[in-house]
Amino acid sequence: WADLQSLNASTMIAHCDYWMERLGWIGNFDAAVEGRLPDDRRGREFSDSDVYKLLEAMAWELGRQANSDLEQRYSAIVARIARVQEADGYLNTMFGRPGQAPRYSDLEWGHELYCYGHLMQAAVARARTAGEDELVRIARRAADHVCEVFGEGGIESVCGHAEIEPALIEFGRLLGEQRYVDQARLFLERRGTQVLEDIEFGRQYFQDDVTVRDAEVLRGHAVRATYLLAGAIDLAIEDDDDELLSAAERQMRRTLARRTYITGGMGSHHEGESFGADFELPSERAYSETCAGIGSIMANHRLLLATGDSFFADQVERALFNVVATSPSEDGRSFFYTNTLHRSAPGVVAAADEVSPRAAASLRAPWFAVSCCPTNVARTVASLGAYVAMSDGQAVYLAQYVAGEVSAETEGGEVILDVDTSYPSEGVISFTVTSAPSGGAELVLRVPGWAGGATVQVDGEASSADPGWARIARRLTVGDRVVLTLPMATRVSRADQRIDGLRNQVAFERGPVVLCVERLASEEFAVDDLRVAGEPRDTVDGPVLPVRAVTHHDAEWPFGAAVGASPSVEASVFEVPLIPYHRWGNRGPSTMRVWMPVG
Amino acid sequence: WADLQSLNASTMIAHCDYWMERLGWIGNFDAAVEGRLPDDRRGREFSDSDVYKLLEAMAWELGRQANSDLEQRYSAIVARIARVQEADGYLNTMFGRPGQAPRYSDLEWGHELYCYGHLMQAAVARARTAGEDELVRIARRAADHVCEVFGEGGIESVCGHAEIEPALIEFGRLLGEQRYVDQARLFLERRGTQVLEDIEFGRQYFQDDVTVRDAEVLRGHAVRATYLLAGAIDLAIEDDDDELLSAAERQMRRTLARRTYITGGMGSHHEGESFGADFELPSERAYSETCAGIGSIMANHRLLLATGDSFFADQVERALFNVVATSPSEDGRSFFYTNTLHRSAPGVVAAADEVSPRAAASLRAPWFAVSCCPTNVARTVASLGAYVAMSDGQAVYLAQYVAGEVSAETEGGEVILDVDTSYPSEGVISFTVTSAPSGGAELVLRVPGWAGGATVQVDGEASSADPGWARIARRLTVGDRVVLTLPMATRVSRADQRIDGLRNQVAFERGPVVLCVERLASEEFAVDDLRVAGEPRDTVDGPVLPVRAVTHHDAEWPFGAAVGASPSVEASVFEVPLIPYHRWGNRGPSTMRVWMPVG
Repeated sequence: WADLQSLNASTMIAHCDYWMERLGWIGNFDAAVEGRLPDDRRGREFSDSDVYKLLEAMAWELGRQANSDLEQRYSAIVARIARVQEADGYLNTMFGRPGQAPRYSDLEWGHELYCYGHLMQAAVARARTAGEDELVRIARRAADHVCEVFGEGGIESVCGHAEIEPALIEFGRLLGEQRYVDQARLFLERRGTQVLEDIEFGRQYFQDDVTVRDAEVLRGHAVRATYLLAGAIDLAIEDDDDELLSAAERQMRRTLARRTYITGGMGSHHEGESFGADFELPSERAYSETCAGIGSIMANHRLLLATGDSFFADQVERALFNVVATSPSEDGRSFFYTNTLHRSAPGVVAAADEVSPRAAASLRAPWFAVSCCPTNVARTVASLGAYVAMSDGQAVYLAQYVAGEVSAETEGGEVILDVDTSYPSEGVISFTVTSAPSGGAELVLRVPGWAGGATVQVDGEASSADPGWARIARRLTVGDRVVLTLPMATRVSRADQRIDGLRNQVAFERGPVVLCVERLASEEFAVDDLRVAGEPRDTVDGPVLPVRAVTHHDAEWPFGAAVGASPSVEASVFEVPLIPYHRWGNRGPSTMRVWMPVG
Repeated sequence: WADLQSLNASTMIAHCDYWMERLGWIGNFDAAVEGRLPDDRRGREFSDSDVYKLLEAMAWELGRQANSDLEQRYSAIVARIARVQEADGYLNTMFGRPGQAPRYSDLEWGHELYCYGHLMQAAVARARTAGEDELVRIARRAADHVCEVFGEGGIESVCGHAEIEPALIEFGRLLGEQRYVDQARLFLERRGTQVLEDIEFGRQYFQDDVTVRDAEVLRGHAVRATYLLAGAIDLAIEDDDDELLSAAERQMRRTLARRTYITGGMGSHHEGESFGADFELPSERAYSETCAGIGSIMANHRLLLATGDSFFADQVERALFNVVATSPSEDGRSFFYTNTLHRSAPGVVAAADEVSPRAAASLRAPWFAVSCCPTNVARTVASLGAYVAMSDGQAVYLAQYVAGEVSAETEGGEVILDVDTSYPSEGVISFTVTSAPSGGAELVLRVPGWAGGATVQVDGEASSADPGWARIARRLTVGDRVVLTLPMATRVSRADQRIDGLRNQVAFERGPVVLCVERLASEEFAVDDLRVAGEPRDTVDGPVLPVRAVTHHDAEWPFGAAVGASPSVEASVFEVPLIPYHRWGNRGPSTMRVWMPVG
């Protein structure tokens, strides 16, 4: 995390800024003021939202550490946006001017409310880290406008892309504006009642098929579905609505049990960027959009807060290490939009200086025609601090483990911990109390579901800790040290037998990190030429896997009585490295598998 | 076949006619004449082509058997089209009028040349079965116009959807117009040199990534790819171009060995309706568009004629029985657009009176917003007679087996055979010579690749016949009878181990027909609850499969060390029917699998 946050601060945020300035997505706001729209409009209909996501990333990053250049840049962009907002609060560079489609004339695809949602999320980030400023005022005017236009007696519809729902609630909660929450409730209750037009992908694409209260599982466009669920959980908490919360929890639990990749990735279909049927999780062409991983984190983190079940924190961690961390390249200048679990032929390196027209670029690309993911990664990474710890007033719960200082408010006062760890490289995490209220601090540590055999050491005495929450038996005072040790041996995982694409295959995990076999195009044997020939072995250089090479023989027709027996398997066994899945694709064209065939 | 042809004559052709009249696709031609375009334009940009495909179906059907009502209807539609053709031969209801985009301004997506292609194919059908008429003259003017506009010195580009290439060659061959062939050559040589714009799906979508001469395998949009290959084979034959022929053969052989479903279906991706990578053939959501099956038949039949290899006739048969025959419902009033090999949840019955917005309707639908498949099935079924026999001047080759009269020209004179069979229900096919030249007739019979153990009986004496061509040893005269017996026991097939989605699964075939397990929503056990528990057994009511039921237990997270062992398998074995895949989905919502898990 720390590395990813540094990379974000040093490179990723500036990279997004560079591309959106270069492509004129930020310039759209200037063009609006100068009367050059629609002629000079650049980017897709939702490009404003990427500018807002960049501002959100900047706001969180500025909250993490001061940076006067970044502060200046942030303010300059906000000033350019401010000039575009109309007197009634409307703000969008795509609609409403002469030559443009009228405001709210295309709720299915226009993304106007979606853009406001990201504007409000940016404002939330700013208000939380620096207080109310120009951006917060812009967002407030937009929120007021939305309540005016889409409130009772107004347009009785919703946006084709959920996002304003959680944003209105978070923004309203922060500002104490109950009517924003009320507006979100209207949106959440309308969706699913077929208020949007039917489309080729079906109404489930934008979750307008069944209400969020009645749905059994996430379906349709995975980003839309997870964002919507995040809003539903927020509303359930605001309204103390147990029925809605349990509907949301039921949907996420079934989605995790039946529609999620081992990486935490969501979405099996390229077409419609959507969830597949239950257990339809083929590795090849897994869509697993980076943004859907982020949506999953948003929803799972809220379920963690709402239910207290550490299982949801496990899922946040899984998606962070295996989806969000997979997207950016090691240099922070290119991104995966989709995250396949199997590449059978080496991919193509994207040009460093060109926009990729395709979301499904073979390797990471610097920017996309639809470029939601880079800015989403930037804002998520900058805000990671928010996922680390929580408090129920009494105890401090550590949900995620990252080196650094953690502070949390309890009823007794502030608790500050110094966390020392190289997790997930190693499994030892030590906590030293540097500040505690006079009555001491209660500490509760998450033991991940995979971490059977974990131990907690307090006062030099170790005791075993089962997966779930491990509560430290005594109250801690300044200077106390607790050490959590998670078992980091490489694990072999199998899949539910209903997943056809994973029969007779195994995957490997180490701590929260999913591993993979990657073979550079220049190396002997592609991944599909290898078969698992034993248990993985941990070495000082990382885990290795014993494999055998196979030679496939092409039949003129690949189906028949004798075909299954065709490959020749070599007798000799050799070892190949198992690398973190999130690090694949950084060394040039390669083949890669997360799930490896056995025998 | 005979049943399908009767259904086509009685229902399918009229069904297509009804829907295109109702939706105004035929009416677009009237609207053009009456100056009501673009306001009254209905359907997608390529809807003209479906009217031409309907005419082609009518023309073949009229050639098969006279029908004065159908003849009248055919002529009426042709008359309505004739009025729209402009003085220079241009003919399209979507482009070129005030308020419409200019002619040829969108070659990537406009489909103007594609529509001409289907116009010419309809004209070929008419000219072959009835001689030159108004439709043939319209097509001739269009072809002249295309040569004018896209010839040397004209627009140096191609159509985003291949089709005019084989059409120009077949039409030119028929009329003796070499310049149509020359124009097709220009199109075939241009494509692959990046003459079209790059698009989100990549230039391979319309095969503009690599020339047809250099390509190694079919890729991109499967219908486009197969139609283009058909044109390339036609050109190779016209030009006596062995290099081009071998390029085409190489591509088809690799496509059959690595990118084709056991049904003969082509295309793994819903997105882009395209081929996947080698061995990327998941059963769930197999796209296998009906039209791609037809394109495969077009290309394989041409390869059969060009190379004489009966392997390609096997592929024609496979796609006919398992893709084309699967599309229409038993009543001929609804169609599959895509042909999945696995349905894990019962599908939704499409409304009988509504256009389905989605190609991937769960069950067959009466009509689609993009409705290429119903008219394509109709024209293919009406023309099936053309696939049955061929002659090399000396011998008559029987490539497909269907009851009826077969006539073929040889250098000695006409050969007529009476074919008596209920193939593929049974494996006995008997041929009686009813007319033969004075020197007798040479007969060669195709023994399909799956038919090891076949026998041929001549003069009451049986001898074994290996897969491939079985040449009857002596010349036959009138009254001679030959009986081919193909083994029809149900076969168990496995898949190449590189196909991840098919590991540890088997499929069942009987003769050329792929079988499946179908479970109605009302029956106990869905297909995913069954495991193969023995060999299939042939009974008088058809083949049955011994299975065991399994009970799956949902884990909160479906991956882990112990997960793979989760389902409980019941001890008792029972039998379920194996039905022809092409008959599934005719009895209401159901689950279905072609590939069944073992153990």
